[in-house]
Amino acid sequence: MTSQDKNEQHRAEMKKQQAAHRKKMAGKEQQKRGLLMVNTGSGKGKTTAAFGTILRALGWSRKVGVVQFIKGKWKTGERLFFKRFEDMVDFRVMGEGFTWDTQDRERDIAAARAAWEVGLDMMRSGDYDLVVLDELNIVLRNDYLPVEEVIKGLLSRHKDCSVFVTGRDAPQELIGVADLVTEMTNVKHPFDAGFQPVRGIDF
Amino acid sequence: MTSQDKNEQHRAEMKKQQAAHRKKMAGKEQQKRGLLMVNTGSGKGKTTAAFGTILRALGWSRKVGVVQFIKGKWKTGERLFFKRFEDMVDFRVMGEGFTWDTQDRERDIAAARAAWEVGLDMMRSGDYDLVVLDELNIVLRNDYLPVEEVIKGLLSRHKDCSVFVTGRDAPQELIGVADLVTEMTNVKHPFDAGFQPVRGIDF
Repeated sequence: MTSQDKNEQHRAEMKKQQAAHRKKMAGKEQQKRGLLMVNTGSGKGKTTAAFGTILRALGWSRKVGVVQFIKGKWKTGERLFFKRFEDMVDFRVMGEGFTWDTQDRERDIAAARAAWEVGLDMMRSGDYDLVVLDELNIVLRNDYLPVEEVIKGLLSRHKDCSVFVTGRDAPQELIGVADLVTEMTNVKHPFDAGFQPVRGIDF
Repeated sequence: MTSQDKNEQHRAEMKKQQAAHRKKMAGKEQQKRGLLMVNTGSGKGKTTAAFGTILRALGWSRKVGVVQFIKGKWKTGERLFFKRFEDMVDFRVMGEGFTWDTQDRERDIAAARAAWEVGLDMMRSGDYDLVVLDELNIVLRNDYLPVEEVIKGLLSRHKDCSVFVTGRDAPQELIGVADLVTEMTNVKHPFDAGFQPVRGIDF
């Protein structure tokens, strides 16, 4: 096949793809309300993709809230970053650290409850276009909050508020009511190859 | 079991987990060079998680480069965002749009080659802590650039430069040489439910 034939074939194929794409898009509706999104799975990128969504939202001057349910008060790249955007991102680190460090179930439950109340207020207020409830799935997995109560709260959010819930082991009940669910799977991970987390990438 | 018993049991279990975690971490090495990371799969969050990593890197005042291989010049949240950080993020939109819109294989190849040269210079310069080669996997899938040449280029990067390659259908050769590979899988997606992409979330 000559180079010109190849180009012609390519053009014909692309015209077909374009028509198919346009047809598909023409039938689609606009979202009338904020989305409920979940990033789960044991792979990397659950919280990170929620932060990437924040970056997009900030580009469009949206108001964003973040509640971190598990992570402790140590220094992370995200915290340093959000400090510069205090007027646009309401970033609340509510977790006391990993559960194996606190070793106190009742304190963990109290911290989870306090974090949830903050997130609930954000979602219902109408002041936020996007609220990230980071590692809420872990809170649910550990039975620190009843899943029915949390789902009821998520569904009671302001209609224009999109919510991102992250963390492995998202409960089936949450998947059932979510609009978007993505599973992150490890194909290959440097932790498994014996390496430590890297500043500026992993935290 | 009384509440006190439950707490005691929890504490004992957490002590065990903490010890296991510490032992695991103590055996780990520090990364001596920048990582080669790949986000692939047909699910959402591949580019978005790379952007979330940028947000972390910016928090630590790292220098970041982004080359978009496919996306065209339309307005996206990420572009609007990166405009504010022009001193820290070198954001280059090199793509001419989706291949079905350009319908010109030779123009696509030329655009891919030009984008690759920009990315290669960034990776080798030593000026960037993190370089995102967005949708490079699509370029490889379409045979717009030879995979051997691209891998050679990725491996020739400055030793402190971490690289993120995104896009579905990452070639096996790339997965073979990468340090971190995550696959994003759709569990549930609003596009499938008949909805359009949402500004501030999908772009």
